[in-house]
Amino acid sequence: MIPAGGIGSRLWPLSRAGAPKFLHDLTGSGQTLLRDTWDRLAPVSGEQRIMVVTGRAHRAAVEAQLPTLADQNVVLESDPRESSAAIGLAAAILSRREPGVIIGSFAADHVITDQTGFRHCVEEAVVAARADYIATIGIKPSGPSVGFGYIHAGEPLNCAGAPHALTVSEFVEKPDARTAERYLASGNYLWNAGMFIARAERLLEELALSQPELAAGVIELAEAWDTSRRGMVVDAVWPNLTKIAIDYSVAEPAAAAGRLAVVPGDFDWDDVGDFASIARLHSGGRKSNLAILGADARVLADSSSGIVVSEGGRTIALIGVDDIVVVDTPDALLVTTGANAQKVKSVVDALRLSGRGDVL
Amino acid sequence: MIPAGGIGSRLWPLSRAGAPKFLHDLTGSGQTLLRDTWDRLAPVSGEQRIMVVTGRAHRAAVEAQLPTLADQNVVLESDPRESSAAIGLAAAILSRREPGVIIGSFAADHVITDQTGFRHCVEEAVVAARADYIATIGIKPSGPSVGFGYIHAGEPLNCAGAPHALTVSEFVEKPDARTAERYLASGNYLWNAGMFIARAERLLEELALSQPELAAGVIELAEAWDTSRRGMVVDAVWPNLTKIAIDYSVAEPAAAAGRLAVVPGDFDWDDVGDFASIARLHSGGRKSNLAILGADARVLADSSSGIVVSEGGRTIALIGVDDIVVVDTPDALLVTTGANAQKVKSVVDALRLSGRGDVL
Repeated sequence: MIPAGGIGSRLWPLSRAGAPKFLHDLTGSGQTLLRDTWDRLAPVSGEQRIMVVTGRAHRAAVEAQLPTLADQNVVLESDPRESSAAIGLAAAILSRREPGVIIGSFAADHVITDQTGFRHCVEEAVVAARADYIATIGIKPSGPSVGFGYIHAGEPLNCAGAPHALTVSEFVEKPDARTAERYLASGNYLWNAGMFIARAERLLEELALSQPELAAGVIELAEAWDTSRRGMVVDAVWPNLTKIAIDYSVAEPAAAAGRLAVVPGDFDWDDVGDFASIARLHSGGRKSNLAILGADARVLADSSSGIVVSEGGRTIALIGVDDIVVVDTPDALLVTTGANAQKVKSVVDALRLSGRGDVL
Repeated sequence: MIPAGGIGSRLWPLSRAGAPKFLHDLTGSGQTLLRDTWDRLAPVSGEQRIMVVTGRAHRAAVEAQLPTLADQNVVLESDPRESSAAIGLAAAILSRREPGVIIGSFAADHVITDQTGFRHCVEEAVVAARADYIATIGIKPSGPSVGFGYIHAGEPLNCAGAPHALTVSEFVEKPDARTAERYLASGNYLWNAGMFIARAERLLEELALSQPELAAGVIELAEAWDTSRRGMVVDAVWPNLTKIAIDYSVAEPAAAAGRLAVVPGDFDWDDVGDFASIARLHSGGRKSNLAILGADARVLADSSSGIVVSEGGRTIALIGVDDIVVVDTPDALLVTTGANAQKVKSVVDALRLSGRGDVL
């Protein structure tokens, strides 16, 4: 299943409420991140076994991107309720349709180019899930990132068919730079890429332990889902579900109880969390390059480095600016630096507070 | 007379062929630089004695800015021929209309706020002009600028009625930083602000010495100017006039021959030559300030410093960029720094060479 939610505020003004991150081509692949995700998952599960959970407003765009997505596999949220509700509902629906099913949840807006490496990890995670673990795939850090959460891996799981799987001692939040360096040096920490693989019932049990009302809510929704009562029950139940990330409701408690397993992923991965990350993806890691996004970009630049996103069709000239981030859209313009890329979210907050919601 | 020519390439994309620098409000005065210039000169000469030399394309805009400009005082250039042709033609026309007249030439796009200081200097320059000097007003440097040409002043002129006037030993081009420091320390160098005051005939004589064909050309034009033959003679003569700045054709040779006088101007002056200069004008000299131009500017900025020019009506967000220059217009966007502001002209050259003349 693909939870396709979240605007990607750190990518404003490219990402908007009406055109969230997963509907953009941020890698230069020529297609949206959502479509990239679909193409990555289809060989693993088959197209007919991919479910997408997204907002009502994005239904048409999602279906246009994924023309072979089965009708019954589109789950529409009337309003965003965070990942526990989205993934929990998908788990509850799928477990009713196919008891014992193993599900995997993969974000709609991450980047992975090594399809084979990804697939091998999923296969091991599925084995761990069959052995009743909540399984995750943790990415081997390529540097001391402070932009990701970390998974502290422990002893080998000793699970036949999943030779690389490890136990998890804890999930940890985004660290400071010094802690990140320590994590990297230790070799025992992996990036949390938000991928979870489990038997649907197992995931719901774990959710019920920490969030019993939320678990009961998604089960109630699932019971009505494939019936004529769906709309009525959604209206009654969905708006009252607790908003909580699945990391807190399922992953952390399962880790604490020794029921979480991690398969270390030795493939490239990026959550494309901010413009510095996009610049990195496009420049092949070289700091001196200027990345240019936008099919009709007309950019004139000298020694400038950083990233230009051009969606306005205008001529853009850059002179002598380093590590620059310029995002040019028809109604809003952002100018910042890679070093400040994480602060973009604060602009979105400020625009909301100052009544400038028309550009959000 | 006001030569209102020159696009102001260093102010692209604000300044364009169709909307040159003198038609913009760059100071926040609420009116264009051209109108500011008019308001500065009208008390000196009287409105009926101001002539404007401008391109045909700008006639309507100039007349809209200066509704009391007399018809006979509008001189239209069919194509730009540099300042010697523009000022020489004005001198020739005015000398025919009023033999012995003293003329002064003042750029349409410079900034002076101290009207009284300016006027006192003009009065002394007129006295020197009556004594048959080519007179100029040189600005006392407020810093070691490398953006201006310099006038090397010599001994007092000893001219009754012009107590501050000095002889000029030479005109010098824009210096490098070290030379500029030396000029400043010596106290003998003044900024060349392109102001020239002289008897019209004297100026034409001086022009004839260095550029005899050019001088003959403007005199031929002037003889036909107030007759029905004007159009015919303009078509025949104007396109063949040598393009040369008046600094080279008149000021330098006159200085070398001891016929140039300078009145030191102890008033604020700026040629608003680039965006760093505009930022300086708006920030009151403080480097930490962000200057914002544009009536409908909607700018959200944190600690950023520099200048934003907003002509596109869009929301502009700046995060953590120092000394930044952002110029946002409907069809073109410039991002650079104050330190690189002089390089903007190279963008204009590059756009012309690359066939992107539509945004020039």
